[in-house]
Amino acid sequence: MDSYRKLISLQKKTNSRLCVGIDPDPSKMPTSFRNSTDSILKFCQIVIDATKQYACAYKFNLAFFEQFGSKGLQILEKALEYLGNYSITIADGKRGDIGNSSKAYAKSLYESFNFDCATLNPFMGKDSLEPFFETPGKLNFVLLLTSNPGANDFQKITIGNKFLFQIMLEKIASWFNGEQLGFVVGATKIEEFGIVRRSVPEHFILSPGVGTQGGDLQALLKANDSRPLLVNITRDIIYSNNEDDLYRNIESRAKYYWEQLRIEL
Amino acid sequence: MDSYRKLISLQKKTNSRLCVGIDPDPSKMPTSFRNSTDSILKFCQIVIDATKQYACAYKFNLAFFEQFGSKGLQILEKALEYLGNYSITIADGKRGDIGNSSKAYAKSLYESFNFDCATLNPFMGKDSLEPFFETPGKLNFVLLLTSNPGANDFQKITIGNKFLFQIMLEKIASWFNGEQLGFVVGATKIEEFGIVRRSVPEHFILSPGVGTQGGDLQALLKANDSRPLLVNITRDIIYSNNEDDLYRNIESRAKYYWEQLRIEL
Repeated sequence: MDSYRKLISLQKKTNSRLCVGIDPDPSKMPTSFRNSTDSILKFCQIVIDATKQYACAYKFNLAFFEQFGSKGLQILEKALEYLGNYSITIADGKRGDIGNSSKAYAKSLYESFNFDCATLNPFMGKDSLEPFFETPGKLNFVLLLTSNPGANDFQKITIGNKFLFQIMLEKIASWFNGEQLGFVVGATKIEEFGIVRRSVPEHFILSPGVGTQGGDLQALLKANDSRPLLVNITRDIIYSNNEDDLYRNIESRAKYYWEQLRIEL
Repeated sequence: MDSYRKLISLQKKTNSRLCVGIDPDPSKMPTSFRNSTDSILKFCQIVIDATKQYACAYKFNLAFFEQFGSKGLQILEKALEYLGNYSITIADGKRGDIGNSSKAYAKSLYESFNFDCATLNPFMGKDSLEPFFETPGKLNFVLLLTSNPGANDFQKITIGNKFLFQIMLEKIASWFNGEQLGFVVGATKIEEFGIVRRSVPEHFILSPGVGTQGGDLQALLKANDSRPLLVNITRDIIYSNNEDDLYRNIESRAKYYWEQLRIEL
């Protein structure tokens, strides 16, 4: 099944639009998990077990694995193997390079690691994105307006009566098939989220920024107007940081967000 | 020694502005090298041995290592270990993410792999770049105008009487110290290279695109006007592809480019 249909099917099955982010950051983990690659993998497995009834997808932030070198990618391979085909997996690496290099990234993420989806940085233009779309059946989330303060520096430059991210949106939506194309729009910028939502009502939007980053979930859901959506939460679920009962804490945070992110309320 | 001074010192020592790109692409290697991680590492070692008297720097394209999963990063770790402290090493991954993720990428590239330099994608703005500059002594090459056809899609959008990449250049140059900041400008776009060169005459420019991609080396050198420069060549050096005498072929291609890229002609 292609990633688009698999995602829709899993959202129905779990009655959820919650995506849980897996960013193994030892400085935020309970101290007993910080010391070895085995314990970091164990932490990822606890996150998966404690959230799987509430999440339709998992977003793996590649930076947090790569910080451990090749051993970090071994942890990633084992965490993906542990998750199996249970859920949608998103490689969050914001990749994008000249054609033959993007082809190697697509091979890495979609063949070697067998992710269902990836986040892509469109700054280098059409041929930097194409190799990811040439892998059949994968769903690519292209950055438009990110959740960080720096999103204002370039993405919101105005050109005529439009923002740069709007011009990019129009071009990118014209290049690729909608079932392979989604967008990343931060939940910290509700007004702009609404602009994108109205421009591409049928495309999936992956929205980070709720929780630690301060995005307003209810305002986001209102602006989304029941269209295809994935809301990613990472730190506010996985770093509740109660060493005594890590599993139960993570589970209760996931449930808290799931209740607000159900498809059928 | 910081990367900026190390690079200047190595350029004098080797009398060279040549950077050799190491992109292990099995489909372009002699067939006997394609079959195992050991033979791919061996290929990287031959490239290093055959070019080290002509190159002041090596650019490792992370995509081509990541395509082999964790085993690919093991090859990268071993290739870097083989190179030792002999040359400047550039992590070409075009990274950039929200602050805490970029911090993990900086930790990966500058601490775990101990690269001297990295290429960065500035699309997500100031806080996506900062963690790389907060690692003392490293030299960061920020993408402005890339060598691929897609560079025209967004990087060359005009805003008033300027291109987007010029507006980005001005902001980025105002944010960071010049000894930690370089730029990536493709050799396939000589006129625009000249615009950047005149705006930031003291900054290093890393220029890919000569060779297989069609950039004109002599026109580039003229536009550069003897300012700080690194010219990267990959495919036209490492994939000369003569199985009978791989080492000598790579060496002669490196020498060919070195002759044109000497500092003292």
